[in-house]
Amino acid sequence: MSKVKVLGFSVSLDGFGAGTNQDLENPLGIRGHELHSWMVRTKKFQKIIGKDGGMEGIDNEFTENSFVNVGAHIIGRNMFGPIRGQWKDEEWKGWWGEDPPFHTPVFVLTHYPRNPIEMKGGTTFYFVSDGVKEALDAAKKLAGGKDIRVGGGVSTIRQFLQSGYIDEIHLAFSPIFLGQGGNLFTGIDFQKLGFTKINKINGEGATHITLTRV
Amino acid sequence: MSKVKVLGFSVSLDGFGAGTNQDLENPLGIRGHELHSWMVRTKKFQKIIGKDGGMEGIDNEFTENSFVNVGAHIIGRNMFGPIRGQWKDEEWKGWWGEDPPFHTPVFVLTHYPRNPIEMKGGTTFYFVSDGVKEALDAAKKLAGGKDIRVGGGVSTIRQFLQSGYIDEIHLAFSPIFLGQGGNLFTGIDFQKLGFTKINKINGEGATHITLTRV
Repeated sequence: MSKVKVLGFSVSLDGFGAGTNQDLENPLGIRGHELHSWMVRTKKFQKIIGKDGGMEGIDNEFTENSFVNVGAHIIGRNMFGPIRGQWKDEEWKGWWGEDPPFHTPVFVLTHYPRNPIEMKGGTTFYFVSDGVKEALDAAKKLAGGKDIRVGGGVSTIRQFLQSGYIDEIHLAFSPIFLGQGGNLFTGIDFQKLGFTKINKINGEGATHITLTRV
Repeated sequence: MSKVKVLGFSVSLDGFGAGTNQDLENPLGIRGHELHSWMVRTKKFQKIIGKDGGMEGIDNEFTENSFVNVGAHIIGRNMFGPIRGQWKDEEWKGWWGEDPPFHTPVFVLTHYPRNPIEMKGGTTFYFVSDGVKEALDAAKKLAGGKDIRVGGGVSTIRQFLQSGYIDEIHLAFSPIFLGQGGNLFTGIDFQKLGFTKINKINGEGATHITLTRV
């Protein structure tokens, strides 16, 4: 059965999933890249960016797994780009170049409608301006029975959690404290939301926690 | 040199250091005991409560270390007991029976003055009603050059952190989410407070993070 999952989402020990002040130079906000260093050094990630090498092991397995059986992605506007408000033109096509690493339909939550953008490698960006449920319904239609991956950022994941749409969430805790930014946990009570099964695996660079609704 | 340390303080993955609704039956608040299960099963803890057995290993080492070179303790009123407001009488002497596990002077932060209580085994409870700095000064005087351990709960540690008095803090992250209770991290920016050195060690039941000001 198709499930809705958060996979490979990095958080700091104090609960932040992104730094502050996202812009062109800091796509993940200030110090946000430190959240992801566990992933960047894996073999899978290096392969995605067209390089040889990288580490095998537990962190690599979690990175691999975050792409398995995914039929569609849903991401927030800020994960798609640094532009806020109305789209000025059609120029911005994401952070990832001509061939983004999604290789599925990607639904971008935004308040501002825009035509779909077909990229190389099977990625098409669709812009959904009528809400979280509509994005999920649209994703399910194009996912071909596979899972929907809710990719981030923090506020997108929080909206999906609070709406009760997430079946499984894999968090990678990086051993850093950010002190400010977008906090994933504020006001989120996983037990009340039905996530009663928790699994922990120590990776080389991050602690992997998977919560499942049962 | 005498240092001010937080040692063996358990937090959930979402940052809570205690559950809600502390009372006589739930000294640690609802589900608070789950925070400490990594420690309860160690050999050191079992020895403290007069039992044989218990696990050796990394969690046990951290439990052992939390008692090394401690000359005085500082704890919050709620860690001392469930009574709020004025002391009705002199009857309540802590959760720990005749011979508490501190074996040092213990300074209890409270708004309500009370005479010291001398217990068995070297523990004396002193009640400090004129503030955090006064408690620290008093503790230093009686610590005999050893370290001061700030024991909890959450609000006591937060006060000491925000006042800049803590030199080192060891947090044991238990693989649970509490969703509510006292949150240690809200508004705390460890980097801004000078804690730039972070060490992580995976224990059997908890992930041990030590932050040091350098």
